[in-house]
Amino acid sequence: MAERDDDVALSLAELFALARKVLVHHGVSAAHADAIARVITQGQRDECHSHGLYRLPGCVRSVRSGKVDPHAQPMLRDVAPGVLAVDAHYGFSLLAFETGLPVLAEKARAQGIAAMAINRCFHFSALWPEVEAIAALGLVGLAMNPSHSWVAPAGGTRGVFGTNPIAFAWPRAKGHPFVFDFATSAIARGDIELHARDGKPIPPHWAIDRDGQPTTDARAALEGAMQTFGGHKGSALAAMVELLAGALIGDLTSMESQAFDDGAGASPCHGELVIAIDPTRFSGAEEEVGQARAERLFEAIVDQGARLPSQRRFEARERSERDGVRVPRKLYNDVMKLFD
Amino acid sequence: MAERDDDVALSLAELFALARKVLVHHGVSAAHADAIARVITQGQRDECHSHGLYRLPGCVRSVRSGKVDPHAQPMLRDVAPGVLAVDAHYGFSLLAFETGLPVLAEKARAQGIAAMAINRCFHFSALWPEVEAIAALGLVGLAMNPSHSWVAPAGGTRGVFGTNPIAFAWPRAKGHPFVFDFATSAIARGDIELHARDGKPIPPHWAIDRDGQPTTDARAALEGAMQTFGGHKGSALAAMVELLAGALIGDLTSMESQAFDDGAGASPCHGELVIAIDPTRFSGAEEEVGQARAERLFEAIVDQGARLPSQRRFEARERSERDGVRVPRKLYNDVMKLFD
Repeated sequence: MAERDDDVALSLAELFALARKVLVHHGVSAAHADAIARVITQGQRDECHSHGLYRLPGCVRSVRSGKVDPHAQPMLRDVAPGVLAVDAHYGFSLLAFETGLPVLAEKARAQGIAAMAINRCFHFSALWPEVEAIAALGLVGLAMNPSHSWVAPAGGTRGVFGTNPIAFAWPRAKGHPFVFDFATSAIARGDIELHARDGKPIPPHWAIDRDGQPTTDARAALEGAMQTFGGHKGSALAAMVELLAGALIGDLTSMESQAFDDGAGASPCHGELVIAIDPTRFSGAEEEVGQARAERLFEAIVDQGARLPSQRRFEARERSERDGVRVPRKLYNDVMKLFD
Repeated sequence: MAERDDDVALSLAELFALARKVLVHHGVSAAHADAIARVITQGQRDECHSHGLYRLPGCVRSVRSGKVDPHAQPMLRDVAPGVLAVDAHYGFSLLAFETGLPVLAEKARAQGIAAMAINRCFHFSALWPEVEAIAALGLVGLAMNPSHSWVAPAGGTRGVFGTNPIAFAWPRAKGHPFVFDFATSAIARGDIELHARDGKPIPPHWAIDRDGQPTTDARAALEGAMQTFGGHKGSALAAMVELLAGALIGDLTSMESQAFDDGAGASPCHGELVIAIDPTRFSGAEEEVGQARAERLFEAIVDQGARLPSQRRFEARERSERDGVRVPRKLYNDVMKLFD
């Protein structure tokens, strides 16, 4: 660990060890602490700062709230040849995902396509680490989950949907997979909170006020509701996430998840749907033809100066794997205070 | 058939018979003519006019181009326990879908989730009739396909993606399913063509000119490329459709489909991916709990004055089933000329 300016420089191993130590200090089981520290390290490594070390205090707060079981053991249930259910037993989602992944992959290879329902989990992480883990096994991954009902349907005035992210990964023969992971809300709720704190106006497509009118006033937005991205199309996708990763899998919608939290301020508790597809089962011996087709598509995008999704993240990853990461002094101090 | 003003009034049965007769007149096999006339009737019935009788002349043009085989017999291939492939043999897509649907449903019920790849088909119809047919069997449906490469990636200057629609249906115990079907392009290409014809400006988020700059000039837009909806998020979804309904299933991307057409102006030839999910295999005896949850979600949307997707279409359907449809005289005459 070296210091320079106001940042704290950490290797990825040091970062992982620090996050893990904080979690264990707060009574999180070794298995959960490993899983959580891994994705926090991945977030910081990829310079997705809101999913890096920054998440640790909220994670600890969720444990302290008493809602999360920091020792919960995920239980797998074989529901159908193509469907696996993982009951997280009110633990964090990540260990449930890691525990279910090998069985999901086995089912995808056997059936061609398979789904994993993760139930009763507390969720605070991005979905890209999960779809990337699926792609690392040579499979196509798709994942989605509800959250808390901060987002209004198109044409509406009140929150019904969560920020409802959708993530997708396509495995590539060489290098990083093609990956995207985006909220179906126009923006993250944290961005509106930051604008409210700083007294800055927000763009009119981010949110509506209590009367359902688009607003540039961040405080009015927090009292109203966020909007989806892309108008009625984004709104339709947000509804799909509620149906597939809520109603279909026997778990809470974003409205129900918010009611369940009951103001405790823990990470949202709900379910998650993960789908894995084995490309070799679709096109057999011709899978390489499909891979080559995908590569020509990516070339046509990159050759005209457009970016693939996650491209910035992968560039950051290469830097961090070489040089380690730099954590702002204030954040580092906040994390160290978690040992008090 | 009765006439009033400048419209021609037709019952749904008369409409179906007319469309079918035109197709048979042009040498389309009875099986294909039935399947096509059915969805054209559905489009007109739901007042999706661009997918109604209006499609028939283009359909006939595709047959005349010699690219489409109007007698092609779809062939099913059991690819994996959860995957079915239907080779349309360069016929229209609809008969391939209808032929494969019972097997897809059987697989979804057996496995919990299943996929159908339709290959080498000519595509000119909306996807909602297909996902609605899946929902009518009590299954959740998801469908997508590429088209021709008119749409630029976010940050790009040239067309790579098709209009790449995504459709979804959730079966409801009572009444119409929850259904959406939207293009991942900001707008249909036909809308830009209409603006160009009428010399009207277009909104700046629809398209870019040849230099990649947003344009309000419809002619400059046609020489440039369309944009996706929702910025980089819509662009990511459009790429996903190319990968899943192109590369994954061993079929053409939108760029390849456009090259294959080679200026013939036929309906785009490519593949389609259809996924079906059996909710009873996910939640077993608790499926009714999930259904009730979904209904509460829909109520929360409708109760605040927002609309469910397809609501207008279902209202039109009720009118048409009661009163029949009214076809503009000019369109009717154009259709009658197809008998010449």
